[in-house]
Amino acid sequence: MKRGTLLVVSGSSGVGKSTVIAQVLKERPELYFSVSFTTRAPREGEVHGVNYYFVTREDFEERIARGEFLEYAEYVGNYYGTSMEVIREKLDKGVDVLLDIEVQGAAKVREKLPEAVTLFLIPPSFEELSRRLHARGTDSEEKIAQRLETARREAKEIVHYDYVVVNDTVDNAAREVLAILTAAGCRMERRIHLIDKESDSL
Amino acid sequence: MKRGTLLVVSGSSGVGKSTVIAQVLKERPELYFSVSFTTRAPREGEVHGVNYYFVTREDFEERIARGEFLEYAEYVGNYYGTSMEVIREKLDKGVDVLLDIEVQGAAKVREKLPEAVTLFLIPPSFEELSRRLHARGTDSEEKIAQRLETARREAKEIVHYDYVVVNDTVDNAAREVLAILTAAGCRMERRIHLIDKESDSL
Repeated sequence: MKRGTLLVVSGSSGVGKSTVIAQVLKERPELYFSVSFTTRAPREGEVHGVNYYFVTREDFEERIARGEFLEYAEYVGNYYGTSMEVIREKLDKGVDVLLDIEVQGAAKVREKLPEAVTLFLIPPSFEELSRRLHARGTDSEEKIAQRLETARREAKEIVHYDYVVVNDTVDNAAREVLAILTAAGCRMERRIHLIDKESDSL
Repeated sequence: MKRGTLLVVSGSSGVGKSTVIAQVLKERPELYFSVSFTTRAPREGEVHGVNYYFVTREDFEERIARGEFLEYAEYVGNYYGTSMEVIREKLDKGVDVLLDIEVQGAAKVREKLPEAVTLFLIPPSFEELSRRLHARGTDSEEKIAQRLETARREAKEIVHYDYVVVNDTVDNAAREVLAILTAAGCRMERRIHLIDKESDSL
């Protein structure tokens, strides 16, 4: 039975990761986008099971104790985590899973599921990233400077990723992400069972 | 400077490899299809530099002595070989190269250019391969039996390949080959220079 591919996508803050992922999911609707658990309150319009699984702090800590998370972290007083259970279930069924996660989380995933395919989305240049962050108009100058500093720091982690995709245009970037996903499904280890099956009948 | 990808394509005899390759080249005309050297006489319609580089036995043996071949072999009295020089030159210029080669040749390429990406094209089943060989109507029963035997023997070599593509339809197979080629160009090692360049300007 064919296993699914776990594709981990990280990217510089402000690089346009959600737009690229949305495009990828549109073109490959059978791909499962992993939904995180969080203890933070839902924002206006956010839906349980779509944007996040919204759970209580108690519930989240029980899941930690059960070792249920592939990775989790606490940011400004709230937990965020990825359930191993859901991902395993999908992969076992042969469904490809896309996980949007930052660099520390990706490191933990690599440790626990070494077969994961990891991808880092970069801007065409830091100059262009700065331009995009300003154009977005949602962040203060200070916040933008912070994001750029983070992007520079995270760029050093790229050596641990399997693939690098440049978000020059959303179409190009999505096309490359889809190619990486397709290629992962063609890897010899994933298809050798086809040969073994045939060899049995010789 | 970005290096090209060397994509090595092997496949079971009669699987439809040339048709898939033709489709791939049509969709990616910038891809360079490696032309082999041979000492055999050109057949009707074959063009020097397109189908093969037709050279004399003396010329071929001089090239062997100079270590010019990435791999070469002698079949029924004729030499066939792949020039390292031409391939290196293309890869250095950033051009992707497709090499159509059988399993022993692929093993030598893997040895000399470990960065090569290798792919094996298989039929949906041996039954289907047998059906296709019969439908082609060019081979005797004996020849077909031989080809099937070779396909079975070669199937054992598939574990040494990076990727396996099933030629169920030419479109699907070509789409997967193109995805593998695109993904190879996105590998971290191939793109990390983009980050280094940026980091210099920080």
